[in-house]
Amino acid sequence: MRWSQTFIPTMKEVPADAEVPSHQLMLRAGLIRQVMAGAYTYLPLGWRAIRKAEAIVREEMDAAGAIELFMPALQPIDLFERTGRREAFGNVLIQFDVKRGDRKVPLCLGPTHEEVVTDLMAHHISSYRQLPLTVYQIQTKFRNEERPRFGVLRTSEFLMKDAYSFSTNLDQLDEVYQQMYRAYCRIFSRCGLEYLPVEAESGPIGGDASHEFMIPADNGEDRIVHCSGCGYAANLERAETGRAAPSISAGDQDGLKPLTSLDTPDVTSIEQVSKLLKCKPRKMVKTLIYQADDKVVAVLVRGDHDANEGKVRRELAAESVELADESTIEKVTGAPVGFAGPVGLDLDIIADHDVVEIENAVTGANEADKHYVGVNISRDYSVMRTADLRDAVDGDSCPKCDARMDFVHGIEVGHVFKLGTKYTDALDATFDDENEQRRSIIMGCYGIGVNRIVAGLAETRHDENGLIWPLSVAPYDVLVIPLNVTDEKVMKTAEKLYAGLQESGVECLFDDRSARPGVKFKDADLIGIPLRVVIGGKGLKDGVAEVKWRTDADPTLVPIDSTVSTVVTMLNERREEESSSIPA
Amino acid sequence: MRWSQTFIPTMKEVPADAEVPSHQLMLRAGLIRQVMAGAYTYLPLGWRAIRKAEAIVREEMDAAGAIELFMPALQPIDLFERTGRREAFGNVLIQFDVKRGDRKVPLCLGPTHEEVVTDLMAHHISSYRQLPLTVYQIQTKFRNEERPRFGVLRTSEFLMKDAYSFSTNLDQLDEVYQQMYRAYCRIFSRCGLEYLPVEAESGPIGGDASHEFMIPADNGEDRIVHCSGCGYAANLERAETGRAAPSISAGDQDGLKPLTSLDTPDVTSIEQVSKLLKCKPRKMVKTLIYQADDKVVAVLVRGDHDANEGKVRRELAAESVELADESTIEKVTGAPVGFAGPVGLDLDIIADHDVVEIENAVTGANEADKHYVGVNISRDYSVMRTADLRDAVDGDSCPKCDARMDFVHGIEVGHVFKLGTKYTDALDATFDDENEQRRSIIMGCYGIGVNRIVAGLAETRHDENGLIWPLSVAPYDVLVIPLNVTDEKVMKTAEKLYAGLQESGVECLFDDRSARPGVKFKDADLIGIPLRVVIGGKGLKDGVAEVKWRTDADPTLVPIDSTVSTVVTMLNERREEESSSIPA
Repeated sequence: MRWSQTFIPTMKEVPADAEVPSHQLMLRAGLIRQVMAGAYTYLPLGWRAIRKAEAIVREEMDAAGAIELFMPALQPIDLFERTGRREAFGNVLIQFDVKRGDRKVPLCLGPTHEEVVTDLMAHHISSYRQLPLTVYQIQTKFRNEERPRFGVLRTSEFLMKDAYSFSTNLDQLDEVYQQMYRAYCRIFSRCGLEYLPVEAESGPIGGDASHEFMIPADNGEDRIVHCSGCGYAANLERAETGRAAPSISAGDQDGLKPLTSLDTPDVTSIEQVSKLLKCKPRKMVKTLIYQADDKVVAVLVRGDHDANEGKVRRELAAESVELADESTIEKVTGAPVGFAGPVGLDLDIIADHDVVEIENAVTGANEADKHYVGVNISRDYSVMRTADLRDAVDGDSCPKCDARMDFVHGIEVGHVFKLGTKYTDALDATFDDENEQRRSIIMGCYGIGVNRIVAGLAETRHDENGLIWPLSVAPYDVLVIPLNVTDEKVMKTAEKLYAGLQESGVECLFDDRSARPGVKFKDADLIGIPLRVVIGGKGLKDGVAEVKWRTDADPTLVPIDSTVSTVVTMLNERREEESSSIPA
Repeated sequence: MRWSQTFIPTMKEVPADAEVPSHQLMLRAGLIRQVMAGAYTYLPLGWRAIRKAEAIVREEMDAAGAIELFMPALQPIDLFERTGRREAFGNVLIQFDVKRGDRKVPLCLGPTHEEVVTDLMAHHISSYRQLPLTVYQIQTKFRNEERPRFGVLRTSEFLMKDAYSFSTNLDQLDEVYQQMYRAYCRIFSRCGLEYLPVEAESGPIGGDASHEFMIPADNGEDRIVHCSGCGYAANLERAETGRAAPSISAGDQDGLKPLTSLDTPDVTSIEQVSKLLKCKPRKMVKTLIYQADDKVVAVLVRGDHDANEGKVRRELAAESVELADESTIEKVTGAPVGFAGPVGLDLDIIADHDVVEIENAVTGANEADKHYVGVNISRDYSVMRTADLRDAVDGDSCPKCDARMDFVHGIEVGHVFKLGTKYTDALDATFDDENEQRRSIIMGCYGIGVNRIVAGLAETRHDENGLIWPLSVAPYDVLVIPLNVTDEKVMKTAEKLYAGLQESGVECLFDDRSARPGVKFKDADLIGIPLRVVIGGKGLKDGVAEVKWRTDADPTLVPIDSTVSTVVTMLNERREEESSSIPA
């Protein structure tokens, strides 16, 4: 492709409103342009990269036995009402009516396609003989982002590969889950991404049934807890801690202050109480009243910690756990919201390990406008047991190897999830098993953000001069630069080289612009095509081309006549190198 | 691909609500399933056909020098206000607000992308040196269809290739228009479609500046006027007629009835007047009052004819022509709407050729509740001139060769259009020319309905048993059918053949279902894979496979050992045959 005939509007300046490197570089290198907040046009270079990533995703999904189809973005809202996701998505779900004759038809734009695909299978699967089946599509998703940001990392419209598996039993589900997991590792490796599969919160089907694929990146919006000792990695929602259970028997009673009730009018938050009573949050006990299935339970965590609902749910072996509503809290504590405490509370109480270590704690007094100080376990209250019930914090020990864990930021590019029967129950997708018993189909879902693959590469593979593409996703393999397009000999040599490379199947961009060499070199670094071939100047006089990888400091001089074959060899070697790290 | 591992839900019965063959067959062959009125899921077979058509479109657009990019479906409504298309699209444009924090953001889903692409170029094109440029995308469009019908022929969401050209002058525009026209001919030929490029109405830029590509089909919603004598073809809006201009001087006055005014209270339409006065519409003169730019003009057509606004506009050399509003009509005729007539009318009057041939015509009397009978040209009224001002009707003569023209129905699959500066004027997309004069960029737009390629094939290439794919768009090249999957020898032979074909690069579907041969043969005809290879029965005993094109009555017997090579040869020959009709 000749630069003059395509459309690569590079920019010298860093755009003022672009906060992160990927956004800045994708704008500057002419990969994307914003149409409005949350919606971007992919310009030719950007689109070529997307299409290469898309092709890799498709190849690996096909190889993993998933079958491609294509579902519409327009969806009837009633399917989302049947699964409860209309409410769950809230403002994120783009909903509207269209007028057809006198009727208003309520529609939405698919944020994903669990509903549509499950409804399809509900109509067509009737026997265990038709299963297992995994289908996928590469299709545009719509989600209203309250705050679109970071360029194409967080938009209201994005290209997603979404796959859905349908199985008769958990073994079948396990098998496809592992297949998808392996396919994802291959996809992200082939795309040249450093990635980390992290354990993620899963549904009631349990087990390590959900993994997110994260690209570690300083500007990532997700937080990952990672143990460099043993490799354990989980997202914040899921991460366990390696803390040992403390003793909850009465310890040394010396130095314990007396239990005292203090007036704390209208002071309900940890922050307010901490300020009023001049105590640190870590000396306070937060008392949370949960509705766990049909039971009400109190959960204690330290004032500076966040309770983790997944851990609470698992500890209580409950199907669903949510904070109790106001009237329930008032009923069980006898006080308005904000004054709950464990002293005298007539509920099952479980506490995070760290809670019982607090001496002379501050808690609510189960009375309006009152808090206790000098609260101590055993003497003043007791708990059924302690457990790991809070989000991990910096410095926590690893649950697997006891080393200290780090927090890293990450960009989520993929997610594999054992859904179980959530959607098939709601939408009546059943099958008859070997014994002619009607049962719900068991589902898994598997998503990849195709745009995020490209944005993730831009975010993590660049230097101060611009992008650094892997060959596998690069818009072009080679950039040929004639130094002076008005010099007949330069152009004749460059044109011949360009033609020769194309004949050899090399994807080649030819910078035929009438611009100064400095401008061309700057743009070359900015758009980051892996291999650069320069024709002209002293080199041409000596009969050589200057061949340089984007990351090399200096070019290699290659005789003009053998440049095509040398470039082809170099590309093949690089491709082999890139492939060597791809898992089986 | 093994049939048992993909998802091909064929149906025996013709679905009750499917009116046309393509809709019936695409449902029955398991290509599509409806999600709701106007939105379909493409199942694996249907999606493979779409992807093949898409690849052909992409190859030809690339070869024609168009550059691929990708624009979002979500678009800000204000761009459509600037071009006036918010009003013009009306109910077809899908509009809604999304909530972002406290703000409501008004958006729409792109019905096409003239606005977005022109705005992009407005920001990036500044000099004639950057032009010409043609960009395209293959992207999902959204248009609210009041009455979605005919399966995927008319839906609210569809895959479109839309291209936009940007030029400095009409010569550049002509050149890209011809390039696109040729690319379209190649695309539809390669896809195996019989197609007809027909002249279509164009904007004020004039000339033969718009062509629609139609598939002649009985159930097509468009009407094409076609001369089998010389090949002239145009859509109804555009079609000229070969009628000669009649004399408008006073002829034989014998037999003319006197001009007489009759009471016709509340009777304003041709139909009502015809009924009341017992005269045929062909004996009546319809008097239409038009606003042509800033002038008011009367246009006469016969009562049974429809005025053609494009012809009126060109005849008057006007930029815009529309029916005058009520108050203008009352002012110039002195009567309410419905009683206009040429007698005594103080306006420029032009008439369709056929009008002046009517003796003793019936017309409005320019007075409330009055019509004239016995109206005759020259004696009672005169016209400035006659011209071809009406839609063509059955039996009209060809404008090029004077033969009689036919009406045929067609499905529109493509459209090329010289837009001129409509959008660039509205959105300030300008360039500096060689003399540093600021001028509007000249645009063209070029659309192809990718879904309609596949639906058009289904509509026109089938027999009573099912679909008949061309190799170029067929979901698979070959269908291998083992007659009895429980017979070890049959399966061993079939599996070996299946593997051999795949190794040879043949796209192969393998019907490994445990089903009766009759079921498999019926499904084979229904899904219409071009080449069928049957293994088993007597053939296998004789050491042969039965190889048969979908359209052949009887199979050819091919020795098992040479079946792979024979199939490869047959496919190559068929591909060559299909290619032979592709225009350069």
